[in-house]
Amino acid sequence: MSLDERNVLSVLPREIDRAQLIRGVAEAARSAARVIAKAPAQQRTHALVAIAEAIGRHGPAILAANARDVAAAREAGVTPALLDRLRLDDQRVAGLARAVADIAAAPEILGRVERVETRPNGLEIQRVRIPLGVIAMIYEARPNVTTDAAALCLKAGNACILRGGREALDSNRALLAAVQDGLTSAGLPVEAVQLVPTTDREAIAELVRLEDLIDLCIPRGGEGLIRYVAEHARVPVIKHYKGVCHIFVHAAADVDLALAIIENAKVQRPGVCNAVETVLIDRPIAAQLVPRLVARLTPAVELRGDDEVRRLGGAAVRAATEDDWYAEYLDLILAVRVVDGLPAAIAHIERYGSSHTESIVTADRDAGERFVREVDSSTVMINASTRFADGGELGLGAEIGISTTRLHAYGPMGAEGLTTTKFVVRGTGQIRS
Amino acid sequence: MSLDERNVLSVLPREIDRAQLIRGVAEAARSAARVIAKAPAQQRTHALVAIAEAIGRHGPAILAANARDVAAAREAGVTPALLDRLRLDDQRVAGLARAVADIAAAPEILGRVERVETRPNGLEIQRVRIPLGVIAMIYEARPNVTTDAAALCLKAGNACILRGGREALDSNRALLAAVQDGLTSAGLPVEAVQLVPTTDREAIAELVRLEDLIDLCIPRGGEGLIRYVAEHARVPVIKHYKGVCHIFVHAAADVDLALAIIENAKVQRPGVCNAVETVLIDRPIAAQLVPRLVARLTPAVELRGDDEVRRLGGAAVRAATEDDWYAEYLDLILAVRVVDGLPAAIAHIERYGSSHTESIVTADRDAGERFVREVDSSTVMINASTRFADGGELGLGAEIGISTTRLHAYGPMGAEGLTTTKFVVRGTGQIRS
Repeated sequence: MSLDERNVLSVLPREIDRAQLIRGVAEAARSAARVIAKAPAQQRTHALVAIAEAIGRHGPAILAANARDVAAAREAGVTPALLDRLRLDDQRVAGLARAVADIAAAPEILGRVERVETRPNGLEIQRVRIPLGVIAMIYEARPNVTTDAAALCLKAGNACILRGGREALDSNRALLAAVQDGLTSAGLPVEAVQLVPTTDREAIAELVRLEDLIDLCIPRGGEGLIRYVAEHARVPVIKHYKGVCHIFVHAAADVDLALAIIENAKVQRPGVCNAVETVLIDRPIAAQLVPRLVARLTPAVELRGDDEVRRLGGAAVRAATEDDWYAEYLDLILAVRVVDGLPAAIAHIERYGSSHTESIVTADRDAGERFVREVDSSTVMINASTRFADGGELGLGAEIGISTTRLHAYGPMGAEGLTTTKFVVRGTGQIRS
Repeated sequence: MSLDERNVLSVLPREIDRAQLIRGVAEAARSAARVIAKAPAQQRTHALVAIAEAIGRHGPAILAANARDVAAAREAGVTPALLDRLRLDDQRVAGLARAVADIAAAPEILGRVERVETRPNGLEIQRVRIPLGVIAMIYEARPNVTTDAAALCLKAGNACILRGGREALDSNRALLAAVQDGLTSAGLPVEAVQLVPTTDREAIAELVRLEDLIDLCIPRGGEGLIRYVAEHARVPVIKHYKGVCHIFVHAAADVDLALAIIENAKVQRPGVCNAVETVLIDRPIAAQLVPRLVARLTPAVELRGDDEVRRLGGAAVRAATEDDWYAEYLDLILAVRVVDGLPAAIAHIERYGSSHTESIVTADRDAGERFVREVDSSTVMINASTRFADGGELGLGAEIGISTTRLHAYGPMGAEGLTTTKFVVRGTGQIRS
């Protein structure tokens, strides 16, 4: 079966149009969101525990559906990297279930009182955490996003509409069946988690226009997908464009520490957004650091340097072009540049950075504090690998994405990022004079 | 001089096009935002104090400019209500200066640490408050928004671009001169607060498309303006559509308390968004309440009721239509309906409400708590007038607007609503395994 034939719209009666179909999904989600928002914490927790169990029980069906997706994707000639992201096995399915169970076990968020104040007139003011409503999650080939997003949305009291990649359609349906089983066994409406039943791009445009029904859209995937969503959206969008992460090795750095952090940030998992892409080296330490960096990383990592780095590093360093400073390689390639001090490093990051994650390596406390104060990326670090820019590592629990724009959430975003607060005012008959 | 002749574009050389003009303003704001964000708290406070003083010093020029605006607006035949919002006098100018001084005196927000955690690997994680960047404020005839918005943006470390109504263009320019005087005397760039030098609507569309330069747009004004902004925006928008506020008088209410709260919420200032528009009355208390409500409010207030209210209230109550339940009157008109208990009241609010403010009057603690838990408006109250839904009254200080959508800010929004947080991570060489 070709990918196109698997598109549900092609088997729907002609008279049901796409807009009507998508609106129907969103209206059902809106109704379900009201029920989820009012459900007690223990009922939502029950649902999450039941979903984790159902993922285990549905394992064989999930793997069979995934095998069909993988076969179709291979036939369509997708890249090995995409095939790897798409593929599930027993261990990965167990991982999906465990992630949901962890979310179930995390502390409750809804109803939390964030601020309490009694006004001079006796009014008691609180800000109380409440759900956002309906979240649209638009993503590509990773089936794990299906269960992670569903679980995080339910934890935060929201309904969600999932629109995964066409390559993962059968896998996502099988995972959805497990999620909906869990909802049913907890007495919650299955419409709280739905899959858009068509994978054409126009369906995304329909979905993100429904500002009366959807409270937030989170696109996760390549820059093309995110720009497409941003262009068509009338609902608020939390974007994560890319991660061009920097490490600045300050003059007062410990060179061994710097080498270990750079290697870890580049090599430990090069294909992710918090891997380092550019290293900036303070001029006074360059002669000491560059030769050791070349010895440590090449030839496994391709280095692209400016003139000074090439002079110090020799033939193993290729020449960097202006484009390299903007590049998110997601690969074993590293751009390296010598800069004149902290202000020049900050200016480079302001110009070429992506507001994701930057780290300074230094033994000078003041330099470190100035760096984290003046660099305005969503995560700024002193003496640590950029790979720690992750909801789990920063103590948020599972993450639904990393925002590189500043509204609502900035940086790794967990279940709390899927909530807001309302004002609750308790009086005894106060009127305004 | 007609309103059109006062549009700056008409006196600009033809070759400078509007898009270029607006982009130039936004680029200057972006550069200024970097300076403001890094300025120490005392320098921003100095600027705010100096702005308050400059408003006083510029008083005669501000009043002269305002007199020209008022004369032109009167000639153009605007409504008396608009004329009143536009007009400044000595007392109002003093009020503008005092509002800025109050913002200067409020506690500092930037750099505040919101969360501290040490991870098992020794990483210290903080979330630290930072500015949003560049705020575009789009509003109508009230000149006070010019100085309020400028001061709140500076307090939060942001630059701002103001686009006021064409009726207030001269007043806004005179106020801007005072603001820029204050910035200069504190050594901060005047581009931190700018006025869009043209008042045509297309300029708004240009402005809200600049997602690379502007972080947030806040429209304040009529529904038409807000929808226009939402339609053209590529930058995030915080919307406040309208306030259809409800008071629900529960069966267990004290009738005197209910009457005092309803009267205050309707009559004290009927033209504002937190005035009550619909009163819902629990059936068991209707026979007791309705006649007293009619006696208390009519004929000053026009009552529009359902059949039951008309039966109990007599000829003084007009018949409400379906449209009345959706209406934001902003006038001495009140819709009144009898409902069957708390769930029916909540259902009415869900269907017809605007997510602004709702209040329950009851002596039954459980009923009150259920109401504030289940109603998902941005402000929910027990035994208090809806008129308290206001940044100042809720303890936020001055407010820049009231958001009725849930992303980033929900409800009254003060200076803190113009900030976000970044993650600051301090390590000793941690790498990820």
